[in-house]
This record gives sequence, C-alpha cells and structure tokens, in this order.
Amino acid sequence: MARGDGALDRPPPGPPRTAAHEMFARDRASRALGIELVSAAGGAAVARMRVTADMVNGHGMTHGGYVFLLADTAFALACNTAGPVTVAAGADITFLRSTAAGDELEARATERASSGRSGVYDVTVTRDGDVIAEFRGRSRAISPGRPA
Amino acid sequence: MARGDGALDRPPPGPPRTAAHEMFARDRASRALGIELVSAAGGAAVARMRVTADMVNGHGMTHGGYVFLLADTAFALACNTAGPVTVAAGADITFLRSTAAGDELEARATERASSGRSGVYDVTVTRDGDVIAEFRGRSRAISPGRPA
Amino acid sequence: MARGDGALDRPPPGPPRTAAHEMFARDRASRALGIELVSAAGGAAVARMRVTADMVNGHGMTHGGYVFLLADTAFALACNTAGPVTVAAGADITFLRSTAAGDELEARATERASSGRSGVYDVTVTRDGDVIAEFRGRSRAISPGRPA
Amino acid sequence: MARGDGALDRPPPGPPRTAAHEMFARDRASRALGIELVSAAGGAAVARMRVTADMVNGHGMTHGGYVFLLADTAFALACNTAGPVTVAAGADITFLRSTAAGDELEARATERASSGRSGVYDVTVTRDGDVIAEFRGRSRAISPGRPA
Repeated sequence: MARGDGALDRPPPGPPRTAAHEMFARDRASRALGIELVSAAGGAAVARMRVTADMVNGHGMTHGGYVFLLADTAFALACNTAGPVTVAAGADITFLRSTAAGDELEARATERASSGRSGVYDVTVTRDGDVIAEFRGRSRAISPGRPA
Repeated sequence: MARGDGALDRPPPGPPRTAAHEMFARDRASRALGIELVSAAGGAAVARMRVTADMVNGHGMTHGGYVFLLADTAFALACNTAGPVTVAAGADITFLRSTAAGDELEARATERASSGRSGVYDVTVTRDGDVIAEFRGRSRAISPGRPA
Repeated sequence: MARGDGALDRPPPGPPRTAAHEMFARDRASRALGIELVSAAGGAAVARMRVTADMVNGHGMTHGGYVFLLADTAFALACNTAGPVTVAAGADITFLRSTAAGDELEARATERASSGRSGVYDVTVTRDGDVIAEFRGRSRAISPGRPA
Repeated sequence: MARGDGALDRPPPGPPRTAAHEMFARDRASRALGIELVSAAGGAAVARMRVTADMVNGHGMTHGGYVFLLADTAFALACNTAGPVTVAAGADITFLRSTAAGDELEARATERASSGRSGVYDVTVTRDGDVIAEFRGRSRAISPGRPA
C-alpha cells in the first residue's frame, strides 16, 4: 500500500505537528480503516471515519466496536499531544443512536481532568451533529518502553 | 468472498443454534475480521480473534478498539442467545495487558444480572490464559425494528 | 427534626424553583448530610457538602461512597430540572485526589447528551478548585410510579 | 460513642483477621452507618447494611449513593485482605432495582483480575437474593503514605 506518501505524512501548513501526529502515522489500525486525523493539539483531537459495509453488525447497524475504536483513536491522539507517552487504562462508552454503512462519524476528544499520571478524557462521537455515543477514557502516562 | 459456504453456516453437530448464531451469520464486521464464534448458548458466548498487523496502534500494540470489538461481539452473542432482540446500551472496559500482532485473543461473555429490559454482562478477554481486558456490557432488550 | 422550616423550603429570591428543588426538599439522605443545593436549572445543578469526621474511611480519607453520593445528588438534581421524572440507571466515577474531614466539596452537574429516554450527565467534584473526582451519570426518564 | 467495645473489635472465632479487618475497624464512615463486615479473606468480602430513613432520596428510594457506598466498602475490604495498601481508582455501578428504608442490603465483592498494581473487582449488591446493583471497582495498590 502506498500510504506512506499520503497527505498526513506531509508537514501540514497550519498547526504544528505534535507527538500525536507521529503516533498516528504509525497507527496502522486507524489508517487501515481510513480514519482521518483532523486535528490534534493541546490535549484535544478530532478524527473522522466513514462507516463501510464491513463495519456493520448482525443488527444491520455500525458495530459498536468500530464506534469505540474511532473514539479510542481520538482519545489516544488527545492524550499524546504533548508530554510523556500515554496509554488507555480503560474507557466507558454509552451508545445513544445507531448509524449505518455510509455514515461519516466524527469523534472530538478533550482532556477533562488529570492528576499525577492519570487523566480523564471525554470523546463525543457525532454524525451530522447528532450525538451517537459518549466515551470517557481513562489514561495513564508511562515511560517509553515500560508497561502500563 | 465465499463466506456463505463456510463452516459457521452449516448446522453444528453439537449444541443447538440460537438467535445468536443467526445474528453472527449476518455480522459482517466480526466475520470480516476473522472472528470465530466458538459457542453461544444460555446467556453465554465465546469468540476468538487473531490480531493482524492491521490491528496495531501507534504504540505497536493491539489497538484497544479491536480488543473492545472482540469483547463486544461476544457480549452481543451472549445477550441474543434467547428471547428478544437485545442491543448494547453501553460498556466499560479496563485494559490490563497489551498484546501484539499474531496473538490469539479469546473473549468469554456471561450474563451477570438482569432486571426488566436491562442486563449486565461480563466479558473477559484473554491471551494464553492471561487476562488482557475486563469488559462489562449493559444491554437493553428492544422489540424488532424499534430504536433502543 | 425541624427541617421543614429550613432555608431551602423558602422560595428563593432569584432563579425559579424547578422539579429538582421539590425533589431535593424530599431528599432526606442529602439533607441529613448537610448537602446544600446551590443551583438547579436548565439541565445543570450545583451542590455542596462539608466532609465530616463520620465520612472518613479506613485510610483516613473521605469515603469514596460520600464523594459519589454528593455527585449523584447533583446528577439527580440536574436531570430533574424539567420534564419527566428521571432516575439514575448507573454511573461511573474516577477518583483523582483524596480529601479529608473538614474539606468542602462542590459537585457541578451538566447534561452532556440525550436520546429518547436516556441521558448522559457529567459531574465534576472539586475542593478549592482542584478536581477530586469525575462522575458520569446515565439517566433514564420514567413515568411517575413506574419502575425504571 | 462506645464503638470500640463492639463485636467487630473482638477476635472472631473462625477465619483469621486480615489487614481488611484492621482497616474496617478504622472506617468511621462504614461503621457510623451500621455496616457489618460479614467476611473478608482471600480477595473477597461480604458486607451488610440496613437502609434507614435517612438514606432515602427524593424519589422515596434508597439514595444511589448509599448503595454505592456499601459496595465500595466491600470492594475496599476485598482488595485489602492481603498485600499492599490498595485504594479505589474508580468504579462503575449499574442500578437494577430500587430499595426502600428497612431493607437489608448485602454486598459481595470478589477479585476478578489484576495486573501489576491494578486490579478489577466485582461487587454484587442484593436484597433477599435479588440483585439491586452491579458494581465494578478499579483498584490501585499504593505504598503506605503515598498518594494514589
């Protein structure tokens, strides 16, 4: 695949690249799904994904796992915009509306609070402005190479 | 793809097929990822998935979204083994260990409690017997065709 | 007890009383703990509580149950400021800092999203501006007298 | 108050006292509410509490904060039955049935999984065998005197 020459690997004209951009460039899972990094700076991030036919569950709706995955990617971007390497310790998601193949989902992540190595991030997933899911991520800062 | 003639569409020799099996047959997301339905009966289910190179995040670990997705599939199977159509209202996941491409993950879901249309399910995700993640799903029974 | 003649039962001079104020007047648990309703209107609420010596756990810190309880009271107030009777279906709390007897805690609840009868509320608990805990409540609107 | 000479401070005849028993002896919050430590050993604990008129919320039901508090006490007991001092990092609770003044609630906590300093505990709260709430606690082992 020729992903290496995509737009995301070129220096963007506007906001500065952060550690989150470097991480996203290596995030094969997010990129293989066509997830787009819209922005990542200052403890916040926005990512988008179009639901494909291969993301639909047995009820004919977007599999909750993919809604979670998009939110989790935005969460990871937000908590790695600066400072130490940070991983997800856990997350909670509430599903509010279902979506279907063809829909474009947007996840907006923001840092809510932190203390020591622990952080709490909110991620709202929307489709055309309607809230699809609310995700709350719990982060843990780690030293490079150390287990969480 | 010739998924329609796969082993999962043949009547299994042992335990009876449930609504969960029918649902899984239609679950394109889970099947496109190679998730295997090991068992689904009596409010419980087991599913397996091998982590591929396209499931790895920017930290070089399995993307948490895929760990969640596998657990969510097992959860959906468990809560649709009988009775009304049931969907996920939400879920919480705690990540305990990281995994990598090539690892085989197993998710075991069991009903924990229910009241009215609400249910609580536990899903443990393991790799070679080590717990990778603990997932707790909140289910909501719906009538066919009705929104959650 | 002479609670019936307390300040909270007099019409406040400023903002209008809502269903939340009526509910709080009947909330023996919150009032027995000295919880103060600061405001409740438009899907938001603020409540305060001073930690007493009888709220301290075996580690010498405020018992997490009381931090949760204060947040839960603010949550209940926020989701009953208007419309149908609404109850808590569940909640998640992350503890970020410990507090001690004598500290005054403030919980600020706001509606985050809703769909149908389900709602998601955020409650931040602070002490002197520092975030002590982040609470996320899941609400369910019910008809009076009906089970959740 | 003459709590110091209560039955809980006498060596029980049967199972050995653990660090959890010592902790409970200092847990003013739990004891002031009349919470009874039924057992605490091997990563598990059982605690009971009778709902009083001062634990009822504005809907005339047991305040969710007290249901959480009882579960949290059982959780704290279970994760301090042995080893390092362990505190709650967070918890999720799903409310399944309401209770009222006079009801006796029982919380049964068990360790579900752990990795490094992190643990996951399940607590089921029942009344006469019916599940009232399912609580999942996230624990973090700390060194004595250190913040979580």
